[in-house]
Amino acid sequence: MSDKLTKTALTPATHTTPPAKFSHGVRKGNILQVAGQVGFGPAVEGQAPTPVGPGLREQTLQAFANAEAILKEGGASWEDAVMIRVYLTDTGHFAEFNEIYNEYFASLQEAPAARTTVYVGLPAGLLVEVDVLAVLG
Amino acid sequence: MSDKLTKTALTPATHTTPPAKFSHGVRKGNILQVAGQVGFGPAVEGQAPTPVGPGLREQTLQAFANAEAILKEGGASWEDAVMIRVYLTDTGHFAEFNEIYNEYFASLQEAPAARTTVYVGLPAGLLVEVDVLAVLG
Amino acid sequence: MSDKLTKTALTPATHTTPPAKFSHGVRKGNILQVAGQVGFGPAVEGQAPTPVGPGLREQTLQAFANAEAILKEGGASWEDAVMIRVYLTDTGHFAEFNEIYNEYFASLQEAPAARTTVYVGLPAGLLVEVDVLAVLG
Repeated sequence: MSDKLTKTALTPATHTTPPAKFSHGVRKGNILQVAGQVGFGPAVEGQAPTPVGPGLREQTLQAFANAEAILKEGGASWEDAVMIRVYLTDTGHFAEFNEIYNEYFASLQEAPAARTTVYVGLPAGLLVEVDVLAVLG
Repeated sequence: MSDKLTKTALTPATHTTPPAKFSHGVRKGNILQVAGQVGFGPAVEGQAPTPVGPGLREQTLQAFANAEAILKEGGASWEDAVMIRVYLTDTGHFAEFNEIYNEYFASLQEAPAARTTVYVGLPAGLLVEVDVLAVLG
Repeated sequence: MSDKLTKTALTPATHTTPPAKFSHGVRKGNILQVAGQVGFGPAVEGQAPTPVGPGLREQTLQAFANAEAILKEGGASWEDAVMIRVYLTDTGHFAEFNEIYNEYFASLQEAPAARTTVYVGLPAGLLVEVDVLAVLG
């Protein structure tokens, strides 16, 4: 009997097409990896991806929503997340980001994911990017 | 019989409270993820977290000690680490960092973890941050 | 019967010696982690590692080749990759990088890996670094 693991691309209908040959998320066995998500709103045919707002709050909540859609597509939820990588562009955003983070994850039942936050460059207009490693089961 | 995996937050007593709803480390099944660790000394009630020294050496050794405490809390050790992500703030620190790294890991018995080192921004006063992915068993 | 997992360092013969006590790649159980790979050409005894070219294309293709050698050493291939982390130094390189990426991965059969791309500092002369998480089986 084969126990070969299946590798599945996770592609929520709301997501814009990736700008290159990568998946928004991948599940293989009980490992689910969400690609870097930014504050792009739902895909609109014929339009380039656009951030939902100029502000950190709107972009962060949209990035979380985008990540959650991918987790769900793979049969997971935030409860399964073991690591959330946070990329901000400005150290001055840390306190506000944490407020938003705490509100968003207030109702978690399981242990919250670990997190690393670093400050990097992102394409113009983007203030935040997040990716997620989840372990299912 | 259920084989549901348990998700456990890893919270060493010496650690300062995370500034947001995340865990210092998480174990689920045989996967253990250590959150980004910096050179904060042991928590002191009523005081804000403070780096142990202005220098790279002190901060790096403290960050490693903080990471190790989380690994131990989850029943693991550096021998189980498969990836160490290193965030430095200055490319001029690379050689000194590697010296410290080699001393610290000199007595490893198992294959050393893989590593990625990049240069990012960190909050004022912090020179180094590390996180760790371990696979137990 | 013990089911202890074996941890194996992955060290392709073509690779330069790591500048510190880390492995180019590690496999433990069905998890394979490739360390950060840059555009260094094959190791030449007695010579310091040198990027293959001043340009993004040469460095990217070499970094991919270096990563692939490690995947193969661990019994894996790009088909097993679930996450590729991309570190660029210049947001102006994004479009060209994606072209190279798409060409390189054009013949993938399985779901493409997830990806996160951020812009960081790298040592002088290096334009790109990539690391890879793969799940085998």
